[in-house]
Amino acid sequence: MRLRYKPGAKERLMSYPQYVIYNVQERKGKWQELFGNDHEIHVEIGTGKGKFLTEMAKANPHINYIGIEAYDSVIISALDRLIEADLPNLKLLNLNANKLEDYFASGEISRIYLNFSDPWPKNKHAKRRLTYKSFLKMYENVLVPQGEIHFKTDNQALFEFSLVSFSHYGMKLNYISLDLHNSDFEGNIMTEYEEKFSSMGHRIYRCEVQFPKK
Amino acid sequence: MRLRYKPGAKERLMSYPQYVIYNVQERKGKWQELFGNDHEIHVEIGTGKGKFLTEMAKANPHINYIGIEAYDSVIISALDRLIEADLPNLKLLNLNANKLEDYFASGEISRIYLNFSDPWPKNKHAKRRLTYKSFLKMYENVLVPQGEIHFKTDNQALFEFSLVSFSHYGMKLNYISLDLHNSDFEGNIMTEYEEKFSSMGHRIYRCEVQFPKK
Ligand SMILES: C[S@@+](CC[C@H](N)C(=O)[O-])C[C@H]1O[C@@H](n2cnc3c(N)ncnc32)[C@H](O)[C@@H]1O
Ligand SMILES: C[S@@+](CC[C@H](N)C(=O)[O-])C[C@H]1O[C@@H](n2cnc3c(N)ncnc32)[C@H](O)[C@@H]1O
Repeated sequence: MRLRYKPGAKERLMSYPQYVIYNVQERKGKWQELFGNDHEIHVEIGTGKGKFLTEMAKANPHINYIGIEAYDSVIISALDRLIEADLPNLKLLNLNANKLEDYFASGEISRIYLNFSDPWPKNKHAKRRLTYKSFLKMYENVLVPQGEIHFKTDNQALFEFSLVSFSHYGMKLNYISLDLHNSDFEGNIMTEYEEKFSSMGHRIYRCEVQFPKK
Repeated sequence: MRLRYKPGAKERLMSYPQYVIYNVQERKGKWQELFGNDHEIHVEIGTGKGKFLTEMAKANPHINYIGIEAYDSVIISALDRLIEADLPNLKLLNLNANKLEDYFASGEISRIYLNFSDPWPKNKHAKRRLTYKSFLKMYENVLVPQGEIHFKTDNQALFEFSLVSFSHYGMKLNYISLDLHNSDFEGNIMTEYEEKFSSMGHRIYRCEVQFPKK
């Protein structure tokens, strides 16, 4: 993600409190209240410019979506999409997901999406990968029992690492495609990175994994 | 594998009892006796023409290898290689592996190799795939606790199916490469199919999976 300093991004984000949530720790355990219904909550970590999650929220009005993105200069584009689409079932958090347990109570989330997560190719940075075991532990703590992670990437090394990491954590692999765009998977919604890298001829990898019963 | 009737194949196989073992059920539980040592036994199922296992046996004299291949017209080529190489640590079985438990005692095998197994692409034939759960159960019964399967294929659909099948069986994924010939995996020994399909530009997939503690 090429980062540009966007003057006024923070102010703009804060002026849409119906879409961008700031008093997050007060929301912990009460997210469904905010949405005003008892629908499942699905969270995307590293939402970027928000194409995936806005389209998912449009397509699935009975799911509540929350997108988490650390950079205000990036998430601002997700806000623009959300203003345009005016969706009641999508909220944005301009936060770092490594504090996920501060924002969500145990079992509050039904599914986590990871799309084109930063690969951190050097071995010494393995702990920063969003599929490293310490992150999996955190996800397990906020997910329902047998909650799922749906993961897409074009990065072969990250995908290999993640499959081993999921397996060693005791997670079950329920679905895998080693070439999503030439598979019979239906209803795929592309992310910004997915559009870019698939147009360059990269294969897209996708899997669904599930935590064991608690 | 293109099958040609080879007149005299059976007779030729039977005339090398030091290499091709026929009284197999009598060997059950006593394979190390036959090898005359207490080394680990690694079995390849669907050995084909035997390139992989002959080279493995040459490279690893302290492992005992057994290659199982159902077709006499195919395994005859493996015998030719074995005569040529004259290896004490490789035996061939001209049998169908779906009776594996008749040939080996519980815990008698340390590792199973599956290389370019027949893909059985139709869903209705899924049960015939050598990584279907009924085969995994059979492998678990003859393998040591926490025994491993090492699997290579160029067939994307078979590899995807197998990863899900291994995971649902409770096996751990210890290693995976989604492009073996462009990976840093060392000491790869190519099979006949691997040579053929990689020269045609196919990617080679490889994984190592492990059964859980009993
Ligand atoms: C490579 S981009 C992919 C963006 C988008 N998911 C897509 O597929 O187009 C990864 C994004 O994840 C964000 N990110 C990485 N780690 C994060 C974390 N711990 N918390 C929140 N966002 C994070 C980055 O800021 C970046 O915008
Ligand atoms: C596609 S070929 C691959 C041969 C070799 N492993 C290679 O990679 O070049 C698969 C082989 O497995 C053998 N085979 C398949 N199912 C088998 C079974 N149940 N028992 C023994 N051999 C089997 C077939 O006869 C065939 O020779």
